[in-house]
Amino acid sequence: MKIIHTADWHLGRILNGKSLLEDQSHILNQFIDKMNDEKPDVIVIAGDLYDTSYPNKAAIQLLENTINTLNLEMNIPLVIISGNHDSKERLNYGSKWFEKSQLYIRTSLEDMCYPISIGNIDFYTLPFSTVNETSYFFNDKTIETHQQAVNKSIEFITQNINENKVNMLVGHLTVQGGIRSESERALTIGTVESVAENSFQQFDAVLLGHLHHPFSINSNVIHYSGSLLQYSFSEATQPKGYRVIEVIDHKLKNKFKPLTPLRQLEVIEGDYEDAIQEKLDIKDKNNYLHFKLKHMSHVSDPMMHLKQIYPNTLSLTNSSFEFNTPLHHENIEIQKLDDKTIINKFFENMTDETLTSIQNNKIGKVLNHLLEGDQTK
Amino acid sequence: MKIIHTADWHLGRILNGKSLLEDQSHILNQFIDKMNDEKPDVIVIAGDLYDTSYPNKAAIQLLENTINTLNLEMNIPLVIISGNHDSKERLNYGSKWFEKSQLYIRTSLEDMCYPISIGNIDFYTLPFSTVNETSYFFNDKTIETHQQAVNKSIEFITQNINENKVNMLVGHLTVQGGIRSESERALTIGTVESVAENSFQQFDAVLLGHLHHPFSINSNVIHYSGSLLQYSFSEATQPKGYRVIEVIDHKLKNKFKPLTPLRQLEVIEGDYEDAIQEKLDIKDKNNYLHFKLKHMSHVSDPMMHLKQIYPNTLSLTNSSFEFNTPLHHENIEIQKLDDKTIINKFFENMTDETLTSIQNNKIGKVLNHLLEGDQTK
Repeated sequence: MKIIHTADWHLGRILNGKSLLEDQSHILNQFIDKMNDEKPDVIVIAGDLYDTSYPNKAAIQLLENTINTLNLEMNIPLVIISGNHDSKERLNYGSKWFEKSQLYIRTSLEDMCYPISIGNIDFYTLPFSTVNETSYFFNDKTIETHQQAVNKSIEFITQNINENKVNMLVGHLTVQGGIRSESERALTIGTVESVAENSFQQFDAVLLGHLHHPFSINSNVIHYSGSLLQYSFSEATQPKGYRVIEVIDHKLKNKFKPLTPLRQLEVIEGDYEDAIQEKLDIKDKNNYLHFKLKHMSHVSDPMMHLKQIYPNTLSLTNSSFEFNTPLHHENIEIQKLDDKTIINKFFENMTDETLTSIQNNKIGKVLNHLLEGDQTK
Repeated sequence: MKIIHTADWHLGRILNGKSLLEDQSHILNQFIDKMNDEKPDVIVIAGDLYDTSYPNKAAIQLLENTINTLNLEMNIPLVIISGNHDSKERLNYGSKWFEKSQLYIRTSLEDMCYPISIGNIDFYTLPFSTVNETSYFFNDKTIETHQQAVNKSIEFITQNINENKVNMLVGHLTVQGGIRSESERALTIGTVESVAENSFQQFDAVLLGHLHHPFSINSNVIHYSGSLLQYSFSEATQPKGYRVIEVIDHKLKNKFKPLTPLRQLEVIEGDYEDAIQEKLDIKDKNNYLHFKLKHMSHVSDPMMHLKQIYPNTLSLTNSSFEFNTPLHHENIEIQKLDDKTIINKFFENMTDETLTSIQNNKIGKVLNHLLEGDQTK
């Protein structure tokens, strides 16, 4: 049995104002070509097929065309779960018809006890759920953390597990110690979202989505496939591809196989003049570039000048003034921050931009209005 | 062979700010019950399944649940085309899988030559298309009217028609002389949209959507099923339901069967005091009501007082000041109107409201900006 593991396609993703649809279409065509060679028994897509819960037509068509080729034309069974970026209802649309062709789209906790059997493998599905959703599903108010939610779900799943089978869990979550990237939207704000590595002992393999680095976790059992493409400049050095898992009897082998994107992401540091004179070390002028440059305060519209040479420049920071900011903020004691600071930090995390003073003023007004409104109740 | 003909479900429709989803869910449950009795060989839905090209989750789920019950649980083949309110791409999503269960969703002109065969009937599909789309599809710039577009399409379809079969056309268009209602959004602005009744002579039956009155056309061949519900107060006296077409050899019988809505629409005329004292003739206090009342200029917030008695009052006009406005504006010579007037009339047609002076000013500014922009080119 050969299983292909992929995740975090994020179709419709826009990076610094640039739609990555062409890049996504290119890489999915390449993925389809590889599948022609691999001839897998099943492909697992572990969540975040779309970048947004309201994907545009082009993203929807790209997903439909891709799964149509893989499933209906190449007759490959697909196991798909929803991630934190997907709308459960939208991703799930049509799934009752799809199952007849072994295209399994699982977005609901209810299905977790019903494994999808392909060959001698039982795939258990754990689509992304908030802690509240899990607490509501089990009608158990003691569930207050992702760890408790996952523990309860796995306990529930494994009540009826068939130990003669190879049992795999497909999930969309963060495992403790996993390498993080900027394009993974936080699962929850203000609580620890990660789950201990030893939570999954009943499974022969755990195929995960959410973390974008394909080697996020060093484990023989728990695997992240990583995302389809580099989706933030923090991923600029990460390989992207898919994972092949081969099961012979009860023995598992796994291997990561890279794909070649249309354009890579690169972070370029140096002097502005050197960039303009093409003296900096850049892999490909057409790559998506984030310049961190010095000595450009005298230049008017440096971005325009850079784009004339490097058309896909997406970001420019003046590194003379750069501060060191931590990549992730999990350890900030959120309860000690005031409302405005929390909103500011959230906005920065989500957009890589800071709020303008006009935006800040508006937020101040809205906050005042809301808080005054509360007092009158 | 028994064919059920329905159309213009407009799921997600909001009437004067009120979501009709509960009414739509009620009527579709009733429709499903009737189908249990009717046991049809096929159900035809002739366009405008959704009210908008970007339907919300609840509307999508209602459609999916309904067609799931009809198609997968009751095993009834469905023939569906897109109307002018539907997004072709969104409605079409998943159709390649659906066809395996005889759920045919056709949104593209390309399919018009490939009939859907069920029993001895060939269904040809003509989803809604703009004149430009048809002109582009045939690469024929002489196509400038709906009549020419339909002529060309039918000529193309009937090249290979099998005359031994019963041939039916499923379309979404306006036939000349058809009774119009306010909730049918105009197919085009500024051109005649209707098509002559004699355009369809090659077909044994023409099952149409778009016009909301089930008896829009007096014909033995051309049928409108009418909409699922009363969707504007101009439809308040119209029956709503579905049509049953029975085919025995090459003979066709057809019959309209009404459904009973949760609430009807009623237009109530009279004196304000009589309304408040419940002296006016109203079928059901819970119906969706449009009051046209006299003698209420002395009352502050008459709508609030009416809603306390008639909770689903959706509209109130002061009939002392009412003007007679024509229901449709097809004959206005649009080229003689200035830009602002066209925009105003369009807004009125679409929303039943008039632009405020602030909105009018903004539009003026945008128009100036656009026109000045053009001159600088």
